[in-house]
Amino acid sequence: MKISKEQVSESNKSGVQNHNENFDFLSNKLTNQGHDVNAIVSKLATFQVAIPSWALGAGGTRFGRFSFYGEPSSLEQKIEDIGIIHGLTQTAGAVSLHIPWDIPSDYNAIKEKADALDIKFDAVNSNTFQDQEDASESYKYGSLSNTSKAVRDQAIQHNLDVIKIGDKLGSKALAVWLADGSCFPGQNNFQTAFQNTQDSLVEIYKGLPDDWKMLVEYKPYEPNFYSTVIQDWGASLMLANGCGDKAYTLVDLGHHLPNSNIEQIVSILQLKGKLGGFHFNDSKYGDDDLTVGSIKPYALFLIFNELVYGMQNNPQNPDLAWMIDASHNVKDPLEDLIQSLEAIQEAYAKAMLIDQNALKAAQLDNDVVKCQEILQGAYRTDVRPLLEKARLNSGGALSPIQSYRSLDVRGGLIKERGKHTIATGL
Amino acid sequence: MKISKEQVSESNKSGVQNHNENFDFLSNKLTNQGHDVNAIVSKLATFQVAIPSWALGAGGTRFGRFSFYGEPSSLEQKIEDIGIIHGLTQTAGAVSLHIPWDIPSDYNAIKEKADALDIKFDAVNSNTFQDQEDASESYKYGSLSNTSKAVRDQAIQHNLDVIKIGDKLGSKALAVWLADGSCFPGQNNFQTAFQNTQDSLVEIYKGLPDDWKMLVEYKPYEPNFYSTVIQDWGASLMLANGCGDKAYTLVDLGHHLPNSNIEQIVSILQLKGKLGGFHFNDSKYGDDDLTVGSIKPYALFLIFNELVYGMQNNPQNPDLAWMIDASHNVKDPLEDLIQSLEAIQEAYAKAMLIDQNALKAAQLDNDVVKCQEILQGAYRTDVRPLLEKARLNSGGALSPIQSYRSLDVRGGLIKERGKHTIATGL
Amino acid sequence: MKISKEQVSESNKSGVQNHNENFDFLSNKLTNQGHDVNAIVSKLATFQVAIPSWALGAGGTRFGRFSFYGEPSSLEQKIEDIGIIHGLTQTAGAVSLHIPWDIPSDYNAIKEKADALDIKFDAVNSNTFQDQEDASESYKYGSLSNTSKAVRDQAIQHNLDVIKIGDKLGSKALAVWLADGSCFPGQNNFQTAFQNTQDSLVEIYKGLPDDWKMLVEYKPYEPNFYSTVIQDWGASLMLANGCGDKAYTLVDLGHHLPNSNIEQIVSILQLKGKLGGFHFNDSKYGDDDLTVGSIKPYALFLIFNELVYGMQNNPQNPDLAWMIDASHNVKDPLEDLIQSLEAIQEAYAKAMLIDQNALKAAQLDNDVVKCQEILQGAYRTDVRPLLEKARLNSGGALSPIQSYRSLDVRGGLIKERGKHTIATGL
Amino acid sequence: MKISKEQVSESNKSGVQNHNENFDFLSNKLTNQGHDVNAIVSKLATFQVAIPSWALGAGGTRFGRFSFYGEPSSLEQKIEDIGIIHGLTQTAGAVSLHIPWDIPSDYNAIKEKADALDIKFDAVNSNTFQDQEDASESYKYGSLSNTSKAVRDQAIQHNLDVIKIGDKLGSKALAVWLADGSCFPGQNNFQTAFQNTQDSLVEIYKGLPDDWKMLVEYKPYEPNFYSTVIQDWGASLMLANGCGDKAYTLVDLGHHLPNSNIEQIVSILQLKGKLGGFHFNDSKYGDDDLTVGSIKPYALFLIFNELVYGMQNNPQNPDLAWMIDASHNVKDPLEDLIQSLEAIQEAYAKAMLIDQNALKAAQLDNDVVKCQEILQGAYRTDVRPLLEKARLNSGGALSPIQSYRSLDVRGGLIKERGKHTIATGL
Repeated sequence: MKISKEQVSESNKSGVQNHNENFDFLSNKLTNQGHDVNAIVSKLATFQVAIPSWALGAGGTRFGRFSFYGEPSSLEQKIEDIGIIHGLTQTAGAVSLHIPWDIPSDYNAIKEKADALDIKFDAVNSNTFQDQEDASESYKYGSLSNTSKAVRDQAIQHNLDVIKIGDKLGSKALAVWLADGSCFPGQNNFQTAFQNTQDSLVEIYKGLPDDWKMLVEYKPYEPNFYSTVIQDWGASLMLANGCGDKAYTLVDLGHHLPNSNIEQIVSILQLKGKLGGFHFNDSKYGDDDLTVGSIKPYALFLIFNELVYGMQNNPQNPDLAWMIDASHNVKDPLEDLIQSLEAIQEAYAKAMLIDQNALKAAQLDNDVVKCQEILQGAYRTDVRPLLEKARLNSGGALSPIQSYRSLDVRGGLIKERGKHTIATGL
Repeated sequence: MKISKEQVSESNKSGVQNHNENFDFLSNKLTNQGHDVNAIVSKLATFQVAIPSWALGAGGTRFGRFSFYGEPSSLEQKIEDIGIIHGLTQTAGAVSLHIPWDIPSDYNAIKEKADALDIKFDAVNSNTFQDQEDASESYKYGSLSNTSKAVRDQAIQHNLDVIKIGDKLGSKALAVWLADGSCFPGQNNFQTAFQNTQDSLVEIYKGLPDDWKMLVEYKPYEPNFYSTVIQDWGASLMLANGCGDKAYTLVDLGHHLPNSNIEQIVSILQLKGKLGGFHFNDSKYGDDDLTVGSIKPYALFLIFNELVYGMQNNPQNPDLAWMIDASHNVKDPLEDLIQSLEAIQEAYAKAMLIDQNALKAAQLDNDVVKCQEILQGAYRTDVRPLLEKARLNSGGALSPIQSYRSLDVRGGLIKERGKHTIATGL
Repeated sequence: MKISKEQVSESNKSGVQNHNENFDFLSNKLTNQGHDVNAIVSKLATFQVAIPSWALGAGGTRFGRFSFYGEPSSLEQKIEDIGIIHGLTQTAGAVSLHIPWDIPSDYNAIKEKADALDIKFDAVNSNTFQDQEDASESYKYGSLSNTSKAVRDQAIQHNLDVIKIGDKLGSKALAVWLADGSCFPGQNNFQTAFQNTQDSLVEIYKGLPDDWKMLVEYKPYEPNFYSTVIQDWGASLMLANGCGDKAYTLVDLGHHLPNSNIEQIVSILQLKGKLGGFHFNDSKYGDDDLTVGSIKPYALFLIFNELVYGMQNNPQNPDLAWMIDASHNVKDPLEDLIQSLEAIQEAYAKAMLIDQNALKAAQLDNDVVKCQEILQGAYRTDVRPLLEKARLNSGGALSPIQSYRSLDVRGGLIKERGKHTIATGL
Repeated sequence: MKISKEQVSESNKSGVQNHNENFDFLSNKLTNQGHDVNAIVSKLATFQVAIPSWALGAGGTRFGRFSFYGEPSSLEQKIEDIGIIHGLTQTAGAVSLHIPWDIPSDYNAIKEKADALDIKFDAVNSNTFQDQEDASESYKYGSLSNTSKAVRDQAIQHNLDVIKIGDKLGSKALAVWLADGSCFPGQNNFQTAFQNTQDSLVEIYKGLPDDWKMLVEYKPYEPNFYSTVIQDWGASLMLANGCGDKAYTLVDLGHHLPNSNIEQIVSILQLKGKLGGFHFNDSKYGDDDLTVGSIKPYALFLIFNELVYGMQNNPQNPDLAWMIDASHNVKDPLEDLIQSLEAIQEAYAKAMLIDQNALKAAQLDNDVVKCQEILQGAYRTDVRPLLEKARLNSGGALSPIQSYRSLDVRGGLIKERGKHTIATGL
C-alpha cells in the first residue's frame, strides 16, 4: 500500500486555513522576538529519524503479546509501512535494519523500493541476544563476552556479516547492542567479560569500512538482571575508545537507572566528540519502550537543548544517527510511530527557540531564575504550527494522525495483507 | 514593604497590548473548539495556593546553607512577603503557619495585617521533628509513635496547642507531618510504632473543632533512612480512617518512592473522598523541594487532570488545601515562589482544556492513540495568555517576575531589613 | 522419574559425620544462649512452600528464551518434578496450579499422584493477562477492570471456573494477579478501572467456598508501563476490604517500587489481619524473578523477622500461603528452586534466633546499637546445620543440590522425556 | 580519655574460653576445606580503615540534629576518640582530616598524639561546599566549576593549602569531593562546568607531591538536586585521566543511583588501575550514610569479593585508601563506627573464603548454580571467630561494643568533656 502526495494534500485541505492563521500569528511573534522562523522550519524539515524494521508490528512483554491487524510480513512490506509514515510526516526518511530478521533476498529490489519512497538505510543492527535455528553456538551465556572462544567468534562473524549486508544497502554504521551480562552474583567475572567484549569489538572494528561508524550501546539491566557488561555510558565510552576513532557511544533513552540525568551524559559525550547515535522512546519505570514524549516530554526537551547546543558548538562530534526504538503493545504501530515523530520534532523545535546568548549571560550571572524563565519560555511555546509548516513544505500532512485515519491506512493494509499476519522479529 | 495596585498596574503597561493580541487569538481559537474561556479564566482567578511561612527565606541542605539578603525575621515580615507575592500573582491569598516558629505575639495585629493584604490563614502545621529549647522530652526517637508515653503526650499536647493557635486566626485544618520512623532495622517495632501513632492521632482528633480537618501527611524516608511510620498513602489513609470523617490524607509531591504514579493515588483518594490537601514542589531524586514544574511539568499536568476530574465528579471529596512546600536554596525565595505559582496555574489551565467527554469516549473505545492526542493537545497549548488575563482581571501583574524585578522588590526589602537577616525556621 | 528415600539416604552418607559435628557444636552453643533447638528444627521441618506449576521449565524475557533440557510437558510431569524437589528438600510439599495451563484431565489420577508424593494443592491462580485461543473476548485492554462488561464477565467466569477446578483438588485459596492497567496517560480512567475491578472481585468473591480465601496481588508496573490498577498494598487492601473477611492481600517480593520497605508492609498487614500470602523471589531492578536470597538475603531475613513476629503475636492474621514465584532463565529450574528453598529456610531459621524479648527491651530503651547487635547476631549465625537436621529428620538430603547432582536427576529426566521438550505456560 | 591494653585485656577475660572453642572449631573446618586460616587472620589484622575527623559527633539532617553527649570539641579530642576505637578494634589505625575544620594548631603535638595511639594520617579532605567566614568568594554556585575565575582560584588555592597541611602530617592523598552542580535545568552549562572542573583539578594536581595521590569522588545528587558536575564514575575517571597517573577515582558506597551495580564499577576501575579509594557506609534510599553493613551486607560482601580479587590480580591498581564516611544521627558515634568496622572486617573475611579457583572453573563451565553456591557458601560462614582472633592477636577486644560499654567509655568522655559539647564540622 502506498499513499500519494495527492492523497495527503487532499486530506490537508480542510485544515489549511486554520494552519495559516496559526502559523502567521506564531511566526510574527517569534520574528519579533528575534527568531529566524524560516531557518527553524527548514531545520525541522531536514531532520530525519530512522524507523527500525522491527517496530512495525505489535510488540509484547514476557507475559505475552496481543497482535495487531495487517502487520507487515516481509522486509518489502516493512519498508512500505515506513514509506507511509514518511509520506505523512516527512520525518521518517530512513530505515534501520535488524539482522538476521531482515536480510534482503534481492538487494537491488529492496534498494529501489526504498529509493522510490525516499528512504535511506541507516545503521544496521546485529542480534546476538537470541539463538538462530541453524547456529552452532548458543548465546545463552553471552556473545561477545562469552568465556568460550567459539561463541565469541560466531558473534564476531555475525557482526561482520551484518556490516557486509549494510554495506550493500548503503548503510554507514553498525549499532551493537549486547544483552551480555549475568543474572546472579558470581556468574561472570566482570573483568574477563569486559576484556572479552573489548577484544571482540576490536575484531569487529577491523572489519568496519573507512566511512563507517561503530555505535556501542549501553544498558544497565534486562534481559540480564544482575549485571550487564556494558552497563553505562562510562563502560561504553571505554570500549569505544579501545576500538578507535570510528567507534562511538549510542544513547537509548530507556537504558538508564532511575533518575539518571541523561542530558548531562549527552552533553559530556558531545564535548568529547564521542556521541554517535540516539534511540528515542519514553519510559516511567525501566526500558518501557513507550511512545516518545508520552511520559516525560520536558526531559526530552532538555536533552534536545543539549543536542542543539552540541550541533552548534561541538564540531568535534559527528552527525548523529537518530532512531526510534519503541515497542507498540497497545497502539497501532504506525500511529504510535507518528506520535513519536511528532514529539521528537516538537522537542527539537522548542529547543531551537532557546535564546542561547541570553541563557549564557544568565548563567554567567548565576541568575538561576532567569535561566529557568528562558528554558520554560521556549518550552511553553506552542510550536505545532512550525511542525505543520515543515511538513506542508515537504508535501506531508498537516496532521499525520488525522490523515492516516481519514485515508483509512490500516483498513487498506488489512485488505492487502489479511488480518492475522505477524511481523517478523520480536 | 508593600506593592500597591498602582505600581503593579504601571509595571504592566508596556505589555498590555501584546497580551491583548495573544489573549484574543487564543481565546478565539479555544472558543471555536468549544471552550468557555471566561469560565476558565474565572476559575484560574479564584484558585488560591497557600504559602508556608517557613519558605520565605533561603533553604539549605545538611551540607549547609547559603543565606539570602533581606530575609524576613518576624511573622509580620513573612506575611508582608506573601502580600507582595499575592499582589503580583493574585494566587497566593493564604499563609500556612508553622508552629512553634510562627506563634503570633499579637493575634489581632497579625489578623489585621493579613486581612489588609487579602491573605487567609490556611492549615496550621505542627512540628514534632525538632526539639524546642524548653521542652522536657526529646523527639530524637520519635514523637506520636514514641515508646515513651511522656514523649507522646508532649507531642499530642503540642498539636492541640497548634489547633488553638490556628483557631484564633481562622485556620480550619491541622496538617500533621511526622518524621517518626527508624534509621536501622530492628530499631522500631513497626506495629507498636503504628499503633502508638494511631492512638496519638485519635487524641489530637478529639481536640479538633467540628469545622476543622486533620490532614495526615506521608513520606517514605528522610529524616529517617530505614523506615517511616507513615510511609505511604495506604498507611496515611488507614490512620485517617482510624480517626474519623474529618481526617484526610495529604499528598506532598516529593514524598514518594522513585517512579511512583502519583496521579493514580490522587484519583483513588478522591474516589474514596479522602484527599484532604496537597503540597506542591518538584523533584528529580527524592524530596528535593524544587520549584513546582521545574523538572516534571507533564506529571504535574497529569495530576491536575485528576484533580480537575475529581473536583467535577467527586462530591464525596471535600475542597482541598493547596500549599507550596519547596526549599529555595539557590534562588530568591520570592521569585522561586512566583515561578511555582505560575507552574501550578499553567497545569491547572491546561487540565481544564482537556475535553473530558471526548476523553471518556476514546477510553470506552480503547482508542489509546486518541486518548493521548486529547491530553497532549491540551498540554501543548500555550496557556500563558489565560494566566495573564486572570491576573490582570484581579489587579495582578502580567508577568509577576518582571514586575518583581522592575519594581526592585528585593532591593527594597534589603533596604528595609538589612542584608544579613535570617528567616526563622529551617 | 522419582527419587526414593533410599537413594537420598545413600547420597547423604558421606556427609553425615561432618553434619553431626557441626550440628552438635551449633546446637550446644544455641542451647547455652537459651534457644530451644529442637523446637526450631521442628518448625523448619513443618514449614512448606508451594511450587508454582509454571516454574518447572526455563523462563524467558521479552528478548527471547533459552530452553532447558528435559522440561516437563504435562501436569503429571510437573508434579513429578515437584516430587523430586520435595524428596530432596522436604520443604516443597505443595503445588500451586495456574489455570488454564494446568487443567487436569483426570482429577483423581492427579490427586493420587500428588498424594503419593506428599504434595498438597495450594492456592490456584487464574490467568486473565493472556488471550486463550477459544476466547470470545480479548484482555488486551484489561480483564476485571475492562470498560466492556462482556470482557469483565468472561474474566469473572474464568475465575469462578478456576475456583471449581481448585475445589476438586483440595485447594483452599484463589490467587488473583491482574495485569490490568495502562501504558499511557489518559488511556484509563483510574476511578472507573478501580471500581470495575472492585465490582468484578465482589462477583468472584460470591463464588468463593466458605473455607476459601481470596488473595489479591499488587504490582506497580509490567506488563503495563504507565499504571497498574492494583498498584500497591494500599490498593490491594482497599479491594480486599471491599470484598469481605475472606479476602486478603498477597505480597510478591518483586512487586514494589525501588527501595520499598517491604518488611514494614508485611508487618502492618499482619497487624490488621490482612496478610494472606507470599510470593518469594529476589530482584535487583524490578520484577526480576531471581532465585530467592540471591541478591538481598538480609532483606529477606528482615521480612522473616516480621513474619515470625506476626505468627507469634498476631492471631488476627490467618496462616499464610507461601509460594516461590521465580523465573529460571539461566539455571536448571529444579536446582534454582532448591536454592530458593534453602534461602527461605535459612532466613526463617535465623529469624527464629532473634531474641524477641531482648529486642523489645532494647527498643524500649532506644538502644539502637543493641537492636542492631541482636538482629545481626542472629543473622551472622551459620544456621546450615539446623536446616540439614530438619531435612535429615524428614528423610531429605543433607545437601539437596549435591544429591540432585550425584543422583543425576537432570540426566534421568532427559532420558525419560527427551531433550527438547517445552514446559507449558510462559 | 584513653583505654589501656590492660583494660581491654581485662574486659576480654570472660569471653576468651568461648572464643577459643569457636575459633578452634571454625579453624579446623576451614583448614579441612583448604584455607590458610592464619593467613586470613593476619590479613584481617593488617587491614586498617581511616576514621574521618568529622564523624565523631552526632550527625544530622536538613531537618535538624539531635546532639550527643561528650562529643569531641578539638582535633586532639577527635584523635583521642579514634584512639579509643582503634584500641578496641585494632582496625581504625588512621584518621582522615577535613580542612578547614581540623587545621592543627601545633603539628608536632598532633603528630605525637596520633603516633602514640598508632594512628596514621590518611587522605586529607578539602571543603569547597561551604563558605568560610573570612572567605572573599562564595561557593553558592560552585567551586572548581564556577563560572567566576576568582571563585575557582580560591577553591584551587584551598586545595593546595590542604595538600600542604596534609604533607606536614604525613598524609599521602588528597580527596576531592565537589558539591558543584545545579538545582535547575539551564542553571549550568554542563560542558563549561565540566571543563572548568577539569582545568581546576589540573591546577591542583600540579601542586601534588610526587608520592601523593589525588582521589576524585563522584556523586549523582545532593546537595544539588538537578545535576552534579562529577555525577558518576565515568565522569570521575575522565577527570582523573585528564590530570595524570596519580589521579584516581574514589568510590563512596552511598553515591549511586538506585539499583546501581557498584561491585562491577569497582571491578572495572581496578582492571584499568584507576580505583584509588573507598568510602564505606550503607543506605536504603540515597546517600543515607548509615552504619556499614546495616542494610545490604551481601552487597558489601560482593564488593569485597571484587576488592579481594583486584588486590590479588590487578597489580596495575595501587593500594586503596579505605575510609568510613557515615553519619551518626541516632547512635553513639563511637559505637556506630565500631559496628561499621566489624561489618567491614566481616565482609573482608568472607570474601577471602571464596574459593577463587573453583569459582573460575564454575564460571568457565557456565555453572551458574555452582557459582552461587561458592559465593553463598563463603557468605554463610560465621566468621566472627576469625575477627575476634585478629583483634585478640593485636591486643584488641573480643567484642569491641561490649568492652566499650563495660568500660563505660561514653561515661568517661562525658565526665571529661561535659555533656553539651558540640563536635566541629557538620
